[in-house]
Amino acid sequence: MKLASFKHFTRACLLAGGLIGAIVPSIVHAETDRMVIFDDDGFALAQWMVLKAPHVKVLGIATVSGDFWQKEATAYALRGLEIANRKDVPVVQGATYPLVNSEKLTDKWEALYGKLVWKGAWMRSWVEKTTQPLPPYHAADVVPDLPWGNPTLKPSAENAAMFMIRMVHQYPGQVSIIECGPMTNLALAQKLDPEFASLAKELVYMGGSLNPRQKLTSPASAQFAREFGNSPRREFNIRFDPEAASITMRAPWKRIVMVPVDPSTETEMSAEFVKDIAAADTPIARIVKRSANNFPLWDEIAAAVWLDPSLIRTSADLYVDVNTMFGAQYGDILSWSEGYQPDVGEQKEKVVLTIDVPRMKALIKDLISKP
Amino acid sequence: MKLASFKHFTRACLLAGGLIGAIVPSIVHAETDRMVIFDDDGFALAQWMVLKAPHVKVLGIATVSGDFWQKEATAYALRGLEIANRKDVPVVQGATYPLVNSEKLTDKWEALYGKLVWKGAWMRSWVEKTTQPLPPYHAADVVPDLPWGNPTLKPSAENAAMFMIRMVHQYPGQVSIIECGPMTNLALAQKLDPEFASLAKELVYMGGSLNPRQKLTSPASAQFAREFGNSPRREFNIRFDPEAASITMRAPWKRIVMVPVDPSTETEMSAEFVKDIAAADTPIARIVKRSANNFPLWDEIAAAVWLDPSLIRTSADLYVDVNTMFGAQYGDILSWSEGYQPDVGEQKEKVVLTIDVPRMKALIKDLISKP
Repeated sequence: MKLASFKHFTRACLLAGGLIGAIVPSIVHAETDRMVIFDDDGFALAQWMVLKAPHVKVLGIATVSGDFWQKEATAYALRGLEIANRKDVPVVQGATYPLVNSEKLTDKWEALYGKLVWKGAWMRSWVEKTTQPLPPYHAADVVPDLPWGNPTLKPSAENAAMFMIRMVHQYPGQVSIIECGPMTNLALAQKLDPEFASLAKELVYMGGSLNPRQKLTSPASAQFAREFGNSPRREFNIRFDPEAASITMRAPWKRIVMVPVDPSTETEMSAEFVKDIAAADTPIARIVKRSANNFPLWDEIAAAVWLDPSLIRTSADLYVDVNTMFGAQYGDILSWSEGYQPDVGEQKEKVVLTIDVPRMKALIKDLISKP
Repeated sequence: MKLASFKHFTRACLLAGGLIGAIVPSIVHAETDRMVIFDDDGFALAQWMVLKAPHVKVLGIATVSGDFWQKEATAYALRGLEIANRKDVPVVQGATYPLVNSEKLTDKWEALYGKLVWKGAWMRSWVEKTTQPLPPYHAADVVPDLPWGNPTLKPSAENAAMFMIRMVHQYPGQVSIIECGPMTNLALAQKLDPEFASLAKELVYMGGSLNPRQKLTSPASAQFAREFGNSPRREFNIRFDPEAASITMRAPWKRIVMVPVDPSTETEMSAEFVKDIAAADTPIARIVKRSANNFPLWDEIAAAVWLDPSLIRTSADLYVDVNTMFGAQYGDILSWSEGYQPDVGEQKEKVVLTIDVPRMKALIKDLISKP
């Protein structure tokens, strides 16, 4: 099916919501088109990679609060789709607040258990001097002007959790979910519909941390190592909504791939890296060229190993869950090798430990060079 | 002062208990003799190192439950002193049970949170095949025959906590404590006498875990890595009595040196190692020669860096405490870099990260070769 006609058909389905979805048979060729929903608390290179990948159908971009409030993440997603010239892809708005955690609770938690290095939308100051700029602190319903320009595209009227439920019912066993933010939407979807996870094809998520180590020598990599140096099991996406992460991990997925912090410490969105991958003169490359933030490539690794699982160099099959007790290690990743797990819902996940960085870089460069 | 006369004087003091101690001025030459109490849940090479070190006065060997029940640890200590021909050193018996933790609680904890790799005196079976022998499981008041032969020496009538309190009052600011087992005795001493820690010179302890990594390739090192692979912050000494560890770490010590699992993964009590260090024909070397258990040199590192701090290659100054919440991470080490700590009692500890292994080996060899 040609892209143009597919686009129109898809938009019609989406506008009609679940009614048409329920009676229209799958129109995607499973042999060629892999279906995916990308859920995230922002929008950047990872989404563009998936949007530009051949034989991939992005069913929707879902948003959630985390690094940004959901409304701001939504604005980035809309603008990101405009830049990618993919206005056919719906942006579905997800949860504004985590299930149990909150900014107030986090203040009190920090008083008892120490300062967090990164708090996303709740961040008012760095504890230590940091080369990263402090994002503007604002209320949940404020959307500051975006550096990429503000979008004119509007989000879907459908809620992210409802959208994801509808999609897995419409394409049972075919929809991958790439989660690169807190798992609030996934937990809501699972509790709204206990069949949700079992109807998806797989969950690939960036989140959590096992035993990462600083591997680069740049000032930025030393500063990002602050996030795991004294808390090897803590990572922001999971820590922002620990209960949602535990609910999601205990849901009956066919397959879960975890991309923790561990493989990211070999990567950096450095000026040199950006210059190389964004050499082409495409709209996306023009933005990426200006985006040397020295971040590890967290979400990009998740997108990359979903697009090409052969990029995984080493991995471990571990039972994984999250500490949801409101103590010093609230939100920490718990993991067990076979035989040690408690069997209270935790499941085996394929945990990515290292990846083929040069080949991932080549993949990114190739994808964002596409017109 | 000659050793023989010192020995007699010391024994007289000890028999008389606190009364004489309180009125007799310090008889140890601070310039030459460093005073130490060694508290442990067993007895092995580490204690012999300290007993054989020049210019070191071992005030006493305290025992506590952990790897062994206290009674069995006491038997080992008594027999160890006989082998070292140091019957002048008192063995003081400490706590049999942890403050809050218990074998029953551990069974229920494991049902909720997964199997522990090592449980010391409470160990009934390995989860996975292990080359290490399973120690005989028995009641707290049973002392099986020791492989070294049973002692005829008897322990002191004084309790370990009371003994330690008496010693720090007798030699204020001069007594180092090397703790290589659970911290039950230290916590009791601190709560019996709030001046206890502040009157000691320092605490050097083997316990806890930051981010250790398997560094050797032997089967044993892979098996010991099970203890931290899925729980980088968990270590047996602390996990056996987490509340005691937190009480102890929050006590007003002048100085705390932590020897976590991290530096130990470069070391192994291998057949080759033992053959080399125990080449001499001394009573201790004869036992050590037969003791190639492939254990990391946990306690020996603590003894070594106390004897010669220049063996520390890298260390970090971190605020340290213990998670005492009875959840999935009960007993985990908590640590904070400057500025992140909550200030609820945690203190800065010098955390040993790596040591000079060849020089430590030379030190051990030298010490146990002494007649």
